[in-house]
Amino acid sequence: MNVSDLGEFGLIQRIARNVSRDPRALAGIGEDCAALPTDDPERCLLFTTDPVLEGVHFESSALPYQIGWKAMARNLSDIAACGGKPKWAVVSAGLRADMSAEFVDELYRGMNAAATQFGAHLVGGDTTKVAGAFFLAVSMIGEVERRHLKLRSMARPGDSILVTGTLGGSIAGKHLEFTPRVREARWLVENFPINAMIDLSDGLAGDLFHILEQSSVGARIVAPRVPISEAARHLECEGDQEHSSFDMALYDGEDFELLFTIPAGHVDRLLADWPKQFDVPLRTVGAITAGAGKFILVNPQGEEEPLAPRGHDHFRKRERGDRR
Amino acid sequence: MNVSDLGEFGLIQRIARNVSRDPRALAGIGEDCAALPTDDPERCLLFTTDPVLEGVHFESSALPYQIGWKAMARNLSDIAACGGKPKWAVVSAGLRADMSAEFVDELYRGMNAAATQFGAHLVGGDTTKVAGAFFLAVSMIGEVERRHLKLRSMARPGDSILVTGTLGGSIAGKHLEFTPRVREARWLVENFPINAMIDLSDGLAGDLFHILEQSSVGARIVAPRVPISEAARHLECEGDQEHSSFDMALYDGEDFELLFTIPAGHVDRLLADWPKQFDVPLRTVGAITAGAGKFILVNPQGEEEPLAPRGHDHFRKRERGDRR
Repeated sequence: MNVSDLGEFGLIQRIARNVSRDPRALAGIGEDCAALPTDDPERCLLFTTDPVLEGVHFESSALPYQIGWKAMARNLSDIAACGGKPKWAVVSAGLRADMSAEFVDELYRGMNAAATQFGAHLVGGDTTKVAGAFFLAVSMIGEVERRHLKLRSMARPGDSILVTGTLGGSIAGKHLEFTPRVREARWLVENFPINAMIDLSDGLAGDLFHILEQSSVGARIVAPRVPISEAARHLECEGDQEHSSFDMALYDGEDFELLFTIPAGHVDRLLADWPKQFDVPLRTVGAITAGAGKFILVNPQGEEEPLAPRGHDHFRKRERGDRR
Repeated sequence: MNVSDLGEFGLIQRIARNVSRDPRALAGIGEDCAALPTDDPERCLLFTTDPVLEGVHFESSALPYQIGWKAMARNLSDIAACGGKPKWAVVSAGLRADMSAEFVDELYRGMNAAATQFGAHLVGGDTTKVAGAFFLAVSMIGEVERRHLKLRSMARPGDSILVTGTLGGSIAGKHLEFTPRVREARWLVENFPINAMIDLSDGLAGDLFHILEQSSVGARIVAPRVPISEAARHLECEGDQEHSSFDMALYDGEDFELLFTIPAGHVDRLLADWPKQFDVPLRTVGAITAGAGKFILVNPQGEEEPLAPRGHDHFRKRERGDRR
């Protein structure tokens, strides 16, 4: 049994077994962020980390500013998924000795721009040299009111499932330049009784499956409701025979949109208020059901199919850049 | 101009120029930890990150438990250097797909053991696959009373310079199994008016130079006072022609002992109380002086020599394992 056999999900379960739980933590391994107590019982700290690695999260052709942006924005997106406000970041950077100083400048300018745009600061870090693929491992502290803390484990039968933006084909560029949905998430948690929330890093199917697992519920996704990005449609038109644009919307990773669940009775008001605040689309794509683990896709013919939770999995599945 | 030309110190200065300072931060880039405000004006958060990378911080022959221990203990040592208490850690792990599940178990058991031994918990993380060298980038939150916060910038002329433990030759094994001086540091800050403190990751000369730079002071180190480890003496006896054991004590990295400065008038009481608390040696090795940047070594003949701030520098200098 090796890392590849375990897959990302099995690996996380295995890790959790080897690590002592902190009884004070409100959320830990398996969530987008750890949620930790502060002196103020009404608030908690959020703590997360996400690396970006050359050849996995970006190609060598990516601009250093974009790489820095993505390294920071992935963490901002995790804080957003928990309903929080980003505060501070540090970065462990693995750099090659022959990188130009200007290249390094641009990496840090990209990280700095993403942080400051969402009210956070890069306050420290460490550097080490690498011989091969270079990496930026950003970690971030955020904060959130306890009543606004959103977790993967909070979905309830009767919830509608909504997603922001359009999905699929992020490999065409969005994965390097996405806007983390920090402002949207804060507005949602401050104004609506959101139950579960997650950011779409592993793909709609993969990330929704995380929610189903952690919340012990099922879901029905209605295929024609899934918002397909123009990037995915373009890739399909260019002649990707293997993946339809719908498959891309369902399984591609790194859209970094929000997926959340909310009691169905609040959806009409939400959809009426949303366009007054944001230009990004918001769409109901399905419903949470009581059958734990039952993951159903309603196809365009109205027939139910079991939906596999595959998606972007760094260890087993389709890689970023497969289509190149 | 590339990363190698800049060196670690030049690189950090360059990074600082590209990053927006948080006016609320008590300490940021260039210190062992960032120090950040909490609601309680008497206390602050500490935030740090340190990666360990195969081929740089450990050889492929290291046991996975040791690698995990070191990844966590480096961060614990940074929190200790600031006088703080470790609280929570997250880890971005770059793992190879063909690693055995048992190997990964041991990595996390090592990290968990180091964290829990010093009152901290590993509360989250992310994994990605790597094709080449694997890495663990741990980040840690700690906390410290503001009056106990120790920084590199706090050394004053008239301070004595002390170090815990014995130095040099950590490559023989200590760098994988060291005890971060968390308990010693807390006892020191709670009982004595320590001014500056740092952990010895870059070597006595290199790390003391960080203090001189940040505090705008000078230092005199008295060669026969520098505590040389048995590991360094053994390496010398084995026939390392290039480096004397004294050179190793002065320049080798990764001893992870504490170096601190304290007004000279408190040293007698400190040296009398210390052995009642700890078995690890404590030794005065020199004094802080008023001449900014003046870095003097008093050799065994009593002659003054200028001391170069070279030491363990991942980008330019002697590498871990050079002697192998």
